[in-house]
Amino acid sequence: MIPRYSRPEMAAIWSPESRFRIWFEIEAHATTALANIGVVPKEAADKVWEKGRDAVFDVARIDEIEAVTKHDVIAFLTHLSEIVGPEARFVHQGMTSSDVLDTCLNVQLTKAADILIKDLDALLAALKRRAFEHKLTPTIGRSHGIHAEPVTFGLKLAQAYAEFSRAKERLIAARKEVATCAISGAVGTFANIDPRVEEYVAEQMGLQPEPVSTQVIPRDRHAMFFAVLGVIASSMERLAIEVRHLQRTEVLEAEEFFSEGQKGSSAMPHKRNPVLTENITGLARMVRGYVTPALENVALWHERDISHSSVERMIGPDATVTLDFALARMTGVIDKLLIYPANMQKNLDKLGGLVHSQRVLLALTQGGVSREDSYRLVQRNAMPVWRGEGDFLSLLKADAEVTAVLKPEQIEECFDLGYHFKHVDTIFSRVFGAA
Amino acid sequence: MIPRYSRPEMAAIWSPESRFRIWFEIEAHATTALANIGVVPKEAADKVWEKGRDAVFDVARIDEIEAVTKHDVIAFLTHLSEIVGPEARFVHQGMTSSDVLDTCLNVQLTKAADILIKDLDALLAALKRRAFEHKLTPTIGRSHGIHAEPVTFGLKLAQAYAEFSRAKERLIAARKEVATCAISGAVGTFANIDPRVEEYVAEQMGLQPEPVSTQVIPRDRHAMFFAVLGVIASSMERLAIEVRHLQRTEVLEAEEFFSEGQKGSSAMPHKRNPVLTENITGLARMVRGYVTPALENVALWHERDISHSSVERMIGPDATVTLDFALARMTGVIDKLLIYPANMQKNLDKLGGLVHSQRVLLALTQGGVSREDSYRLVQRNAMPVWRGEGDFLSLLKADAEVTAVLKPEQIEECFDLGYHFKHVDTIFSRVFGAA
Amino acid sequence: MIPRYSRPEMAAIWSPESRFRIWFEIEAHATTALANIGVVPKEAADKVWEKGRDAVFDVARIDEIEAVTKHDVIAFLTHLSEIVGPEARFVHQGMTSSDVLDTCLNVQLTKAADILIKDLDALLAALKRRAFEHKLTPTIGRSHGIHAEPVTFGLKLAQAYAEFSRAKERLIAARKEVATCAISGAVGTFANIDPRVEEYVAEQMGLQPEPVSTQVIPRDRHAMFFAVLGVIASSMERLAIEVRHLQRTEVLEAEEFFSEGQKGSSAMPHKRNPVLTENITGLARMVRGYVTPALENVALWHERDISHSSVERMIGPDATVTLDFALARMTGVIDKLLIYPANMQKNLDKLGGLVHSQRVLLALTQGGVSREDSYRLVQRNAMPVWRGEGDFLSLLKADAEVTAVLKPEQIEECFDLGYHFKHVDTIFSRVFGAA
Amino acid sequence: MIPRYSRPEMAAIWSPESRFRIWFEIEAHATTALANIGVVPKEAADKVWEKGRDAVFDVARIDEIEAVTKHDVIAFLTHLSEIVGPEARFVHQGMTSSDVLDTCLNVQLTKAADILIKDLDALLAALKRRAFEHKLTPTIGRSHGIHAEPVTFGLKLAQAYAEFSRAKERLIAARKEVATCAISGAVGTFANIDPRVEEYVAEQMGLQPEPVSTQVIPRDRHAMFFAVLGVIASSMERLAIEVRHLQRTEVLEAEEFFSEGQKGSSAMPHKRNPVLTENITGLARMVRGYVTPALENVALWHERDISHSSVERMIGPDATVTLDFALARMTGVIDKLLIYPANMQKNLDKLGGLVHSQRVLLALTQGGVSREDSYRLVQRNAMPVWRGEGDFLSLLKADAEVTAVLKPEQIEECFDLGYHFKHVDTIFSRVFGAA
Repeated sequence: MIPRYSRPEMAAIWSPESRFRIWFEIEAHATTALANIGVVPKEAADKVWEKGRDAVFDVARIDEIEAVTKHDVIAFLTHLSEIVGPEARFVHQGMTSSDVLDTCLNVQLTKAADILIKDLDALLAALKRRAFEHKLTPTIGRSHGIHAEPVTFGLKLAQAYAEFSRAKERLIAARKEVATCAISGAVGTFANIDPRVEEYVAEQMGLQPEPVSTQVIPRDRHAMFFAVLGVIASSMERLAIEVRHLQRTEVLEAEEFFSEGQKGSSAMPHKRNPVLTENITGLARMVRGYVTPALENVALWHERDISHSSVERMIGPDATVTLDFALARMTGVIDKLLIYPANMQKNLDKLGGLVHSQRVLLALTQGGVSREDSYRLVQRNAMPVWRGEGDFLSLLKADAEVTAVLKPEQIEECFDLGYHFKHVDTIFSRVFGAA
Repeated sequence: MIPRYSRPEMAAIWSPESRFRIWFEIEAHATTALANIGVVPKEAADKVWEKGRDAVFDVARIDEIEAVTKHDVIAFLTHLSEIVGPEARFVHQGMTSSDVLDTCLNVQLTKAADILIKDLDALLAALKRRAFEHKLTPTIGRSHGIHAEPVTFGLKLAQAYAEFSRAKERLIAARKEVATCAISGAVGTFANIDPRVEEYVAEQMGLQPEPVSTQVIPRDRHAMFFAVLGVIASSMERLAIEVRHLQRTEVLEAEEFFSEGQKGSSAMPHKRNPVLTENITGLARMVRGYVTPALENVALWHERDISHSSVERMIGPDATVTLDFALARMTGVIDKLLIYPANMQKNLDKLGGLVHSQRVLLALTQGGVSREDSYRLVQRNAMPVWRGEGDFLSLLKADAEVTAVLKPEQIEECFDLGYHFKHVDTIFSRVFGAA
Repeated sequence: MIPRYSRPEMAAIWSPESRFRIWFEIEAHATTALANIGVVPKEAADKVWEKGRDAVFDVARIDEIEAVTKHDVIAFLTHLSEIVGPEARFVHQGMTSSDVLDTCLNVQLTKAADILIKDLDALLAALKRRAFEHKLTPTIGRSHGIHAEPVTFGLKLAQAYAEFSRAKERLIAARKEVATCAISGAVGTFANIDPRVEEYVAEQMGLQPEPVSTQVIPRDRHAMFFAVLGVIASSMERLAIEVRHLQRTEVLEAEEFFSEGQKGSSAMPHKRNPVLTENITGLARMVRGYVTPALENVALWHERDISHSSVERMIGPDATVTLDFALARMTGVIDKLLIYPANMQKNLDKLGGLVHSQRVLLALTQGGVSREDSYRLVQRNAMPVWRGEGDFLSLLKADAEVTAVLKPEQIEECFDLGYHFKHVDTIFSRVFGAA
Repeated sequence: MIPRYSRPEMAAIWSPESRFRIWFEIEAHATTALANIGVVPKEAADKVWEKGRDAVFDVARIDEIEAVTKHDVIAFLTHLSEIVGPEARFVHQGMTSSDVLDTCLNVQLTKAADILIKDLDALLAALKRRAFEHKLTPTIGRSHGIHAEPVTFGLKLAQAYAEFSRAKERLIAARKEVATCAISGAVGTFANIDPRVEEYVAEQMGLQPEPVSTQVIPRDRHAMFFAVLGVIASSMERLAIEVRHLQRTEVLEAEEFFSEGQKGSSAMPHKRNPVLTENITGLARMVRGYVTPALENVALWHERDISHSSVERMIGPDATVTLDFALARMTGVIDKLLIYPANMQKNLDKLGGLVHSQRVLLALTQGGVSREDSYRLVQRNAMPVWRGEGDFLSLLKADAEVTAVLKPEQIEECFDLGYHFKHVDTIFSRVFGAA
């Protein structure tokens, strides 16, 4: 996470201020719950809320205490007692630091997930708008980077829409994975704290109680969360690479919006580069790179070790901030994407009609020619076209073995572009629902 | 995937014979569907089934043809036409190879998922049985590898049970991700094949139609599938490492079953090593290692490129076979695990009562001492015990500042083991449901 | 490692037969060394060689014994004693299994490295031949996928040559990393075996003694080895992607050789796809994927645990066989690559002269215009060309601000292609050495 | 990279101020070189140095310009012209942004490597000191976490010393990989800039000219660099895990230094946790996690794309700062490690003499018993000891089959600890050189 690739709302979740605020809420709710069941005085809980609700926690002061104690939660609690006064001794009763830390992390991750879900909604909206705009804009479909058969530009975007719809479902599931709370004490036995405290705090913080924690909330949950971010990043990379391909000089079917004053190259003033999607490609590598450390975090020793902590202090912000930035950037790219239907048509025409080769193949087969012979007939007329020697339609019409089976108008029929788009509506209704 | 770490049922899914059998079914069902909508003769479809249903596809012959065509599906279709005769020309009409390949891969992955789900069920059953067996067997809980407070051995296993229950849910979701079928033609437009064919084949093969395919089924689905396997492998590593820790010479609270005739070391006849769980630890690394290639497979170019294919030919079997083997091995380990409650008790007693330090801390706090002073009082009596200089209870009783607040019997009460287990039932009912 | 992507010479290194042969050599050399220093009878050593030198080790028999002992080296030694007779009891004296296993692995890895080095030599030879063939074939250089300035096709290949020369140097260093031998006994102290045995075996097997082993040879060495394979795979991916880009329909500056009888698509007879380089792209992902498990293998517990073993049984063959196959395939691609200079020229001309924009910029600057103004002047003439509205040379000649500084012939001079290639010789001599 | 895990010297390399300073130096040296060969006026070069040498580059101002141009190097050059005046137009002549950016990155990486090499030297010194201090301190060697045979604590550290010596060699090689400079213009052809400029700048900046660049310096170099960091991190993880194991409550052979005022747990005042090495374990995961993005950065498109840039902006600082911090922390841990020889002896004695089982095995074999029978004899006396039923020596002496071959004193001889350490000197001289 670096400022260059951060957006403020997401970054704020990970600030020390936010963290201490969440810690306070967890501790204060727990104190209330303890008061509710008669373990600590009601007045103590009230005092904690009264003094702490609007307090500004002094990050520098907490750091100062931590420099001595080498323990961040103790440092915070010490600072809290400076603010609250003697009643602070009722705070954190029967709890362990991880109760605070892990519940806080999960609050942060669910907040981050909420932003990412909004990001996906924005991207989906942009994709949908542009998909309908170009629902029937013909363009060449490519497999292996080679012209295959016609598709529409709207179909390309519909596929991305479907992919990011899945991303959203996965993210919602991943959010649920980490939306748990643990207030279960030193090794998760509730020895010194009643399970009702956990239930109360969970509810107040919008979480579910963790069924069984062992000082820590189990890290398979977080592994799953970061794995999902890695999959979403990979989908983003796919869309980014599509744009980069489309903007290639020889293709130029679409282009990232190029603003006034923008400079493509310090040396070559003519350049208009797909720098946003190239950037997203790199950011996707980073988000993917965080998956393995998250997976390695699962196998903590016994009831816990703390090796996960440094990893999470880094990938917590790094993965969510980077993905948020990349998603927002991608939404901007799609929203403002310059789309060139004329170039698409020019490219479609480039292969001298070869994109219709399959239809000819089918027509021959249905005319009674064996599959193998049909393939041979088509291929021998296609190869010269591939080499730039003639157009496909004329060659077929001049091939006696072909015309023995197909009449000229039957051959021509095979070259109708509209034929390919008859099911676009079907696909759109599958993806976007009934019109 | 190597024979050493393979089980036959899972390996069989990935044999050439299985693959060609699935290809046949897809092609034959598609031909039936084409016949149903009048595109090809009903008799042709019948003939395909009649000749192919019990045919043995000749792997060597297909390889021979592929050596010339350099295209595996064409080689299979050529061989199929050798078996079926001229009606074979109605097979594969309007389809593209990927319709067959991708649908087949998804059939294989869902079959693999079914086996893995069974594996998880077996592991869950073993964990549950042993958890209840040792529901109240006291053992020390450890954080940072250091004795913390008492737990029960059953709680350790309950945590594993809860973790693998999540694994199962994730795997069911992952299975659904890949349970789709595409029969949509060259670039996914259904230009030459009616969407009803896809619907029919999907139903026959137990899959859902892919809403929008682009020659291929999008690879974010498979990335998610393999990511889930990686998370499950990491959970297995956690459990494996727990067993390895427990079997350490100095700990010896549990041990892998050691069979008659087994030799631990060629040089040291006394050795009994946790080789199964060490092995599982290594296998987990492999399954995790396949996640990144699967993520890198997502960003195919345009409507598809074929770079994913070699990856999937390897990780398809490698990841599923390895995970299946490891899960089965883990189930055996848990089932036959030698558990030593006496050693657990010995270890529990090792710290001279220090594991009760928190209770003393709480008792002091509730006796009116400030949190900071309580901590200081406990720590100054704990440190000598840590150094092997005396036991914690006696020291506390001899500390005037402590006894000013707590009576001897109050101090003694803090050393009651049962106190820690009063909520074991609560946790068990959360994990395993109401008794 | 699957047969489809294997070559026999490399695969043979990893067969059980090869492994047992290497085990035999290590054990027999060690016995000789023990005889040399008088620990075991000379006759025993001779007998071991006499009986074992040409013996065929019975893999099935060894597996059978291992099924009971669950220990592969003990199974082998038992089988060896069946072959050698009672003198076999002098074999393996003072050694531990890992002495055999680890030394064997390193023998296998160095053999594998030797093949990979030969593979790189072949690839380098192909790159060099084609580089000189096209040393001065003009083609457009592209940054961001956008036309930048002219380069030659030979330069592209010279860059690849330089990159694979580095790959070779790294592989030589990586080979050295793993070319060590350990015969140091149970925990590496030489308690029961004289260090001279290690020295002797090392020399016979072409290895160096491991300075300090701890039952095992430290796995940072192997991590480094596999990391280097991952870097080489990534370089191969780069070259593969270059070919795939060049073969795109709109670019078509080069093409993989397409053999007689080859079929590009079951549905579209016109297709000629870059399937070999797409395949290499996927294989690169696999080789890269093995790096992380190799890194995770480093942190073995104490003097060793065996978690690395299953990983190495898989990635040992998987990484080397896959990389060998991919390198050989890449050499074939380069050797037979179809190169189309006419298409390169056509693409070069595509941007209406914009590729010369930097020269115009420099000419303006040297004519006294400020850098900022020069940039502005060039950009305002470039943008219409970009949109297909006119050619760059004519527009510049019609721009009064430009012609105020540059005479028409000065502008024309900026459009000379040869200008860009004056240092090709310099670069070639840097890469390939003096002519 | 987060402040918590950063040290100032390394972090400073990556500050905007450092970056702009390096950019200035590259541009100014290039201008001098251009002046030397008569392309720009000598006075211009002098003016650039005169104005820029002590200038403070205004980061906020540069950001402001970049917000418009969306191009960082152009923004810097614009700001530089504000400082230098009209002579600034001679700066950057014939160069491309990447000439500056890539050369700068390599300057930063070599500076970072220099710090890391110093870090390794410090760690090596600490390891050496403690190794000699405990050269002959007996401790149990463990394989699989199970007691094996005696080693010395010095040997453990000697192994770490040898491992980090290799780390240092690798880092020196990795530094050399990235110590190159490119000043070769838009697509690396030197079309607009003489190769002598590159040679001059390279020399001034302490780098080698890149033999062939293509706008960018090839990223296989950087991939190799970060891969080496990943290997070093893994070695550090190994050492960290060793310390964590040794500090386990049941083992307690060594302990991280625990400072005055430090608190181990908010809930359990008795805790002394190996938090530093746990932290290092996590940091190792992060450094390893950066390897894959670096590998994915290699396959840039054609002469370059910019997807690597965002990755490097993150992993450049993240990997080097984190590794620097972790190495320094590890040095502190080793330096101040509390080592408990008495506990080591206690653990050594724990297995009732079983650690000598191999010597007994060898004595029996040399007494004429077959290997298989010897193994059986030893194992049957070892198993009761394992179960805590008797000590190994007494059992052997009471076994008639054993005493038929070995006299009591011969059996006792097998239990001599010193026997195991006779080659410690040999190993120390291999690792540390002749005394």
